[in-house]
Amino acid sequence: MIAIDKYNQRDDAINSLLCVGLDSDINKIPEPYKTQVQPQLEFNRHIINKTAEYAGAFKFNIAFYEARGAKGITDLADSVEYLRNRHPDILTICDAKRSDIGNTSQAYAHAIFDEIGFDAVTLSPYLGRDALMPFLGYKDKACIILCRTSNAGSGEFQNLQIDNKPLWLVVAERVANEWNDNSNCMLVVGATYPAEMAQIRQAVGDMPLLVPGIGAQGGDISAVMKAGLNSENKGLIINSSRSIIFSENPATSAKTLRDEINASRS
Amino acid sequence: MIAIDKYNQRDDAINSLLCVGLDSDINKIPEPYKTQVQPQLEFNRHIINKTAEYAGAFKFNIAFYEARGAKGITDLADSVEYLRNRHPDILTICDAKRSDIGNTSQAYAHAIFDEIGFDAVTLSPYLGRDALMPFLGYKDKACIILCRTSNAGSGEFQNLQIDNKPLWLVVAERVANEWNDNSNCMLVVGATYPAEMAQIRQAVGDMPLLVPGIGAQGGDISAVMKAGLNSENKGLIINSSRSIIFSENPATSAKTLRDEINASRS
Repeated sequence: MIAIDKYNQRDDAINSLLCVGLDSDINKIPEPYKTQVQPQLEFNRHIINKTAEYAGAFKFNIAFYEARGAKGITDLADSVEYLRNRHPDILTICDAKRSDIGNTSQAYAHAIFDEIGFDAVTLSPYLGRDALMPFLGYKDKACIILCRTSNAGSGEFQNLQIDNKPLWLVVAERVANEWNDNSNCMLVVGATYPAEMAQIRQAVGDMPLLVPGIGAQGGDISAVMKAGLNSENKGLIINSSRSIIFSENPATSAKTLRDEINASRS
Repeated sequence: MIAIDKYNQRDDAINSLLCVGLDSDINKIPEPYKTQVQPQLEFNRHIINKTAEYAGAFKFNIAFYEARGAKGITDLADSVEYLRNRHPDILTICDAKRSDIGNTSQAYAHAIFDEIGFDAVTLSPYLGRDALMPFLGYKDKACIILCRTSNAGSGEFQNLQIDNKPLWLVVAERVANEWNDNSNCMLVVGATYPAEMAQIRQAVGDMPLLVPGIGAQGGDISAVMKAGLNSENKGLIINSSRSIIFSENPATSAKTLRDEINASRS
């Protein structure tokens, strides 16, 4: 099934645009998990079991697994397998922000899509479309291109004006109009920039947007929903990581956020 | 020791600006290595033993190791350790083209600089300086920022004009003038764009440039040397991967390329 259809069908089934971010930093996971043989896997199983019923997607930032070397990569792959077996209808996103050329992109795409089996990956646009073709060629997967990132300094290059148009908007238009032959592109747009999100929504039609920056980074949900929903009242993948997985009660935190999102959707 | 000093001292000792790229694609390494327990490690040991005397640096593109999951990461880390023990005076570069924000960049930096122990890493500029601060803060390491990449389509965004200046030049100037407080920045400039390289050299003073695109990608060495050498007759890290490591005789290929580089340096 095409990744975007998978996400939309999950929303139809459980009414949720929530993405739970499994940024399972080994330094931050609770003590009982740290001493396990596969600490990140065990912690992720726990979070998945508590939050899956509220989740339209799970996003794994690969940096927190790479930080443990080979052991972390094993925990990551096993976590994705666990999730896929339990909940084959939930979208899995590898937040890797990869960017490389031809044969190297092919190696990354193979690692992420084939070896670990993710449904989607985040990618940096700086090298251009030709560099990312090995990813874009996977028709059933999703390529989520960095557009307007959530960090405070994201404007340093992204706000540069090209013919009176900011670079982030040029990227959005290119991806929508020239990269999306397989209808498998999405964009990353930070919750911290709702005004820009509204412009991006206008430029890209119904294309899904992955939205980090809610929670710990301070993005406002109702502003995001107003700016980002598409014509089908969908089109947003609202990610929250730390404020769910490291909360006292991850299930309650996930449910609360899902409800908050839906309150702004009706 | 600061990474750039390490590279320059190695050049003083062996008169070489050659970087050997260990893009040890499991599908391309010779048959005898494929059946080893650690195929990429054994192949890398072989290449290191054959080429180290001609090498100022070794660059590992992490994609080819990630493509094998946890096993590949183990081979990568063991290869770097082998190289460091045998040749502590050779610069080690992790070609990862990473770009992420705050706590995630910290995790990547830890993985690459502390866990595996690389001297340098390649990074994408799209997210801006604040996102890469965790890397830039490692004073003894080198941060090599993508500027003008070697792929044919690199101009799609990199050539966009900002006040009559291409984005790649804006990136070069920013890195040189605002990111380089610790004198640990370098730039990636493809051998396939020597005219742009000359402009970048003018903009960034003596900053070292990592130059991919020689060999399989078709960049011309004499043009690169003319455009890219700095005021000390150094400042270039000329990478070649496939045309050395997969050649009939890697030692001869490395020696020939080193000599070709030096012929254009005198």
